Order: sequence, then structure tokens, then C-alpha cells
Amino acid sequence: MPDGTTPLLLRQDSAAGITRLTLNRPGSRNSLSFAMMGAVLDALRAIAEESSVRVVVLAAAGPVFCAGHDLREITAHRADPDGGRGFFDTAMTRCATLMQAIVALPQPVIAEVQGVATAAGCQLVATCDLAVASDQARFCTPGVDIGLFCSTPAVALSRAVAAKPAMEMLLTGEMIGAAEAQRIGLVNRVVPSADLQPTTESLAARIASRSAHTIRIGKAAFHHQRGLPLETAYAHAAAVMTENLMAEDAAEGIGAFLSKRQPVWRDR
Amino acid sequence: MPDGTTPLLLRQDSAAGITRLTLNRPGSRNSLSFAMMGAVLDALRAIAEESSVRVVVLAAAGPVFCAGHDLREITAHRADPDGGRGFFDTAMTRCATLMQAIVALPQPVIAEVQGVATAAGCQLVATCDLAVASDQARFCTPGVDIGLFCSTPAVALSRAVAAKPAMEMLLTGEMIGAAEAQRIGLVNRVVPSADLQPTTESLAARIASRSAHTIRIGKAAFHHQRGLPLETAYAHAAAVMTENLMAEDAAEGIGAFLSKRQPVWRDR
Amino acid sequence: MPDGTTPLLLRQDSAAGITRLTLNRPGSRNSLSFAMMGAVLDALRAIAEESSVRVVVLAAAGPVFCAGHDLREITAHRADPDGGRGFFDTAMTRCATLMQAIVALPQPVIAEVQGVATAAGCQLVATCDLAVASDQARFCTPGVDIGLFCSTPAVALSRAVAAKPAMEMLLTGEMIGAAEAQRIGLVNRVVPSADLQPTTESLAARIASRSAHTIRIGKAAFHHQRGLPLETAYAHAAAVMTENLMAEDAAEGIGAFLSKRQPVWRDR
Repeated sequence: MPDGTTPLLLRQDSAAGITRLTLNRPGSRNSLSFAMMGAVLDALRAIAEESSVRVVVLAAAGPVFCAGHDLREITAHRADPDGGRGFFDTAMTRCATLMQAIVALPQPVIAEVQGVATAAGCQLVATCDLAVASDQARFCTPGVDIGLFCSTPAVALSRAVAAKPAMEMLLTGEMIGAAEAQRIGLVNRVVPSADLQPTTESLAARIASRSAHTIRIGKAAFHHQRGLPLETAYAHAAAVMTENLMAEDAAEGIGAFLSKRQPVWRDR
Repeated sequence: MPDGTTPLLLRQDSAAGITRLTLNRPGSRNSLSFAMMGAVLDALRAIAEESSVRVVVLAAAGPVFCAGHDLREITAHRADPDGGRGFFDTAMTRCATLMQAIVALPQPVIAEVQGVATAAGCQLVATCDLAVASDQARFCTPGVDIGLFCSTPAVALSRAVAAKPAMEMLLTGEMIGAAEAQRIGLVNRVVPSADLQPTTESLAARIASRSAHTIRIGKAAFHHQRGLPLETAYAHAAAVMTENLMAEDAAEGIGAFLSKRQPVWRDR
Repeated sequence: MPDGTTPLLLRQDSAAGITRLTLNRPGSRNSLSFAMMGAVLDALRAIAEESSVRVVVLAAAGPVFCAGHDLREITAHRADPDGGRGFFDTAMTRCATLMQAIVALPQPVIAEVQGVATAAGCQLVATCDLAVASDQARFCTPGVDIGLFCSTPAVALSRAVAAKPAMEMLLTGEMIGAAEAQRIGLVNRVVPSADLQPTTESLAARIASRSAHTIRIGKAAFHHQRGLPLETAYAHAAAVMTENLMAEDAAEGIGAFLSKRQPVWRDR
């Protein structure tokens, strides 16, 4: 347990617009206690309003990325008058809200996975827009081991990887390695441990160097159109493109490209 | 043709809760005659009510896994007064019902693919929750060869693999090997022939050792949420998680995990 | 710029029913100017009515497959009284109409990708039913480099490849090679440059040798059912199968198969 003075979540902001959020409860395997979920949600809600933040890296302290829900906290609430139902409902709703806040965040979020990501921790990775993993990282959804199927992680997992590999993880709870996670689409890149942070930072820097306005338009459009029928998706995306073309950064970017010079984005 | 005394479908139940269903019409390449589809449907409907069954393995006798619909039977019905329309409609509806019964079955279903799986046979593999293939297994949807596009197999195939590989199988009818089937997500694992049954049994045993109540909750939640918008999917899954947490097996499983002991599931 | 006498799009029809459309503006990297989109749309609208065309190959002249929208044309329209809005809206709508016309075309469309395919050019590849790439081909969605997120390409890309690789291409704009494009499902096959056209033609010939009626039924059913709930998808596909079975080519195809002879399709 943290002693009350150690923050659950560390935040570092770079001059380049890269904000690093670090889950900082390594002694508890960075589990998503109610307070930890609140801390991440609060940070994301603040970041959503900060135009200086261009990209977010979600990292973790210690050897474990995130072990999912805090089982001790859950068990303690079984002593509540309602057997825990009220807390469970609130906690599961908060977890779902947190995951959707990552999707809805205007800025892209990159998971930097240095170690084991299990259950809701694996869901975090599946939910982030991009994920870079150390070759030491491993992934599983082991709810079946404790009688609690990873039903909410399944929402994110089944939207990131194909049905059969998702089902295999969910039904067996087996750990998969980083290479297999990349093969099935759960992470984008796998690098040696020593290269993890530099690779993530380099990826983040590349995104941060672009027009933040453009990136925000695009991330929102991507997620908005995903589940729509093709015709509806195209109607939305075509309207987004027109608005994007009318914006200053597109005029600047296209002009710079045609003049073979570097663009200067409005928001830099 | 079976002689009337050989059952179309064999059923073996293990003490561990693994039920093995074996397509047993090898002389007809285990084709899905109207009677065969009925036999599998009847077995699944019975199993759905049997809490002693924790996982189903769908296997096949002989060198072929399943060759799809029974073309001789279909052709015979062209002599019907309606040119076969009534039978075709009933047969295609039964086939679609069978595939959906696998998805809706409370217990997970693992395809054990020892040989060639074509057309509706390939659809069976795509439909099962998991699939283990022998390295001798091969897969195709060759309806285009006989003027009958694999339109119903396409429903399952396009939900298991990406659009372009699915379209390639459907438009060309070409056979793909087991390794390629694994690469595109049609099967989970490929093993030498001699290891096929042990691998499937081991996977089944792992699933059967878990809380069947939990597995049922999870399989249903997975399929329910798949096509839903993200917000609706999370609302459903979060509610499922709360109910799962209130159930006895989650209390036992989490308690056992925290106490570092083996859980004892209610239903064992 | 073309001199007005060079057609933007070349069309060649083979006796076998293979129509080759070649983007023919290599000096402008085959960019999708308003006129080019119109030329492709006109060709597709004509082909849709021609029963003699059984499959379409979409190829490109010169070293580049297609560089996306024509940025000079877009920039020129910024001088319009409305700052370009009217043109942008019309152009983006035409682009979305073109992509949907490929999906809706009765005949399958195979992209033959000999070089770089960027932005809406990459979208063309993602949209085609099948894609064969030279090992020299490369793919990217680099709108972020010019302040114009590839929001409409994202519609096609996210329906062809998994979310994380799609997002990586969209957020980074990085070029990927042909092998990686195959790995993530963007193209079906990668071959040496010298084998590109023979491979595409061979694939096209295989499809053209089948019942065109059957192929049309199947392509339409595939796209129709993709986003539907499972039960609705099966109801549609089962009805399609029944109609397909009642058609002459299925009777001929199944009869030929059972008699071990070559089928003779009605439309040959």
C-alpha cells in the first residue's frame, strides 16, 4: 500500500508536448484500485483540456505493467451490507469509464509495456491507440483462474485482435509473450528492454511533431466510424475531411509540401 | 451411406466434463446431410441443458473433417415438385441454426481438425470458439467451383479472419494449409497429427478445470458484446462483471488466489 | 499534366472477361484528381452493366501506384470565393462514392500494386476485394505530414486491417513494405516485380473461369452481411444460398461435380 504521500500516478510533461503517465504502485503490481482508476481518470480529464499535450505515454513503475483489478479491495467490500454489489458496480463502471476515456481522449495514447499486463491491465494495452512492448512483456486475461471471467477486458481485446486468439486468451488464461502479442495485433512493436523507452519516446515525438489539431480530428474520426455501416462511415469521414481541409494547418501543411519546405503548425 | 445402425454422430463424455462429438460419416466425407445437421443440433440442444458438460470437442472420423453440404442429397431434391426450393430453404436454415447453436451453446466448443475442412465444414471450424488443427489439415471454401458461392460460410469466415484473406478463399476456392490458417486466425494451434487429440484434450481439460459457471458467463458476454457500439458493449460487460463478482465461484476463486490455495468450484 | 489527348484511365478487355483499368497519369503519380476520380467512376458504372466483364484488375502506369488526392488541384481551389469548401466537399464525396462503387461493383476488383500507394491510393488497395503487390510496393497514409489526417482512408484501412496497425499507419504516416502489408492483411500476395502482372492475371483468370452469376451473388452477399448482427447476417445469407441453389449455374456446377466432368456455365 502507498503511504499516502507517494502519488499513485506520476505525470511528467515534456516541452515537446509528450505527457508521460506512470502507474506508480509497483508494490501492488500497479493494480487498478478504485483510487488508481480515479487518479488515471482525473489525469485524462485534465489532459483532454490541455492543448499543450500532444500525445500521452502510459507507462508503469516496477517489473509489472498492471495486474488488473485490486482483488484485496474487492474482497474487503464483500463485508459491506450489500455483500459488495454497490462497490462492484461502481468499480466496474469506473473501469469501463476509464477505458472509454482513453478512446475519447483527443490525444493519442501509447502504452509502454515493460512487464506483465494481466486482466484489466491487458485491457489497458488493448485500449490504447498504440502499444510498444519490451520483449520481456507478457499478456494474459486470467479471470478464469479466479472464477471471474475477463468480460470487460474482452470488450477491448475483441476490438484489437481476431476472435480466435481473443477467445483463447480469455478461455485459457494463458500468458502469451510479446512476439505473439505483436503477431495477433495486441501491440505494435516489440523491442529489447533497454530500447523500450527510447522507442516509445521516438514514436511519441514523431506524433507530437505533427499538427495537434489534425491528430485530434483524425483520432476522433477513426473511433467514430469504426462500427458504422460503410455508407454512414464514409459520409462522416468525408465531412471530416472537408472541415480538415478548411482548417489552417491543412493549408499550411499542403502548401509547405508543395513548396518543399517544413510546415509550421498553428499550435506550435 | 450409413446402414441405419451406425450413428451419424458419436458422443463420448469424460468424467472431467469434456464431451467429444465425432462426425461419423467418413464414407461421405462427413458431409452435412440434413440428418447429420439434425444429429449435431440435437446433441448441442441436449448439451446446453447438461451442467455436467463443461467443454465440447467437435471432431471427425476418417481422413476428412467435413466436406460441407451433401451435394447428392441436394441434387436428389431437384426432383421435388418445387424444384427443391422448399428443401433448400429448410436445409440452409438448419445449417444457419446449427452454426448459431455453437455460438449460443453455454459451453465452449473446440474444433479438432484432422483433415480437410471445406465449405460448411470450414464454416464449422470458423464458428467454433477455438480450433486445433493437425499439420495435415487443409481448408477451403470452394463453392465457386460448383456454381454455389459459400455465402453462409462467409458469415463465419468474415467474423474469424480479415477481409482480404476471407475474400481470397471465397473467390478462388483455393485450399490453404494449416500454417496459413493459423496465420490468418482461422485456427489457434497447429500440431503434428499424432499430437492433435492430446493437444485438444489438454486444452479442453484446462477449460474444464475452471468454474463452468464463470466460463458460461464469459462465453455469452463475449459473443453478446462483439458487434455492439463501444459504450453499449461496456455497459453490458460491466453489468456482467458485477453479477459475476456476486456469484459464489468468484468469491471462492479470488479468496483462494489471495490465500494461495487451489479454488474449489461450486459445480465440481 | 496530361495533354488532353492522353486518357487518364486506360481500359483493356480480354476475351476471358478480365478488364484491366490502368491509372494513367504517371507524371502526376496517378493522383486522384477530380477528373481521375470521375474517369474511374465512369468506368466502374459502365462495367457494372456489362455482363461480359467477369473480374476487374486495377493497375497503374509508371513507378507509383497512386499518390492520393491531387494537392495542386486542392490548393488551386483555395482561391474560390468560398475558400474551396464547395470543391472540397464535392471532391471528398466523389472519393467516398468511388470507393463504395468498388465495393458495390458486381464483379470482384483486384488491385495490382507495382509501386507506392499513399493516402487515398492506399485506400484504393484497402478497398479492392483482393490485392497483389510487387515486393517493391510500399504503403502509407501520410496525411499527418501535411496537416490533413487520412480520415476517409481510415474507413477502408480499418475494415481491412486490425486497429493497432491501422492506427500506427494513420498516426505516424510511416511507409510500410509489401511484406508487412501482407502480414497485417492489407494485401493478399507479394511477388517479385517481374511476376506481378502474371500473378494478378492468373488470379483474375481463375475467378473469370467461374460462373459470373455465382461470383456476383457471393461478392454482394459478403459485403452485405459484414457489419450485420449474426442472426440477421445468417438470415440473409441462408436466403441467398437458396436462391443460388435454384439458379441454373448451381444445378450445372453440382451436377458436373457429381459426374466428375467440367461444368459449362450459362454465361460462357
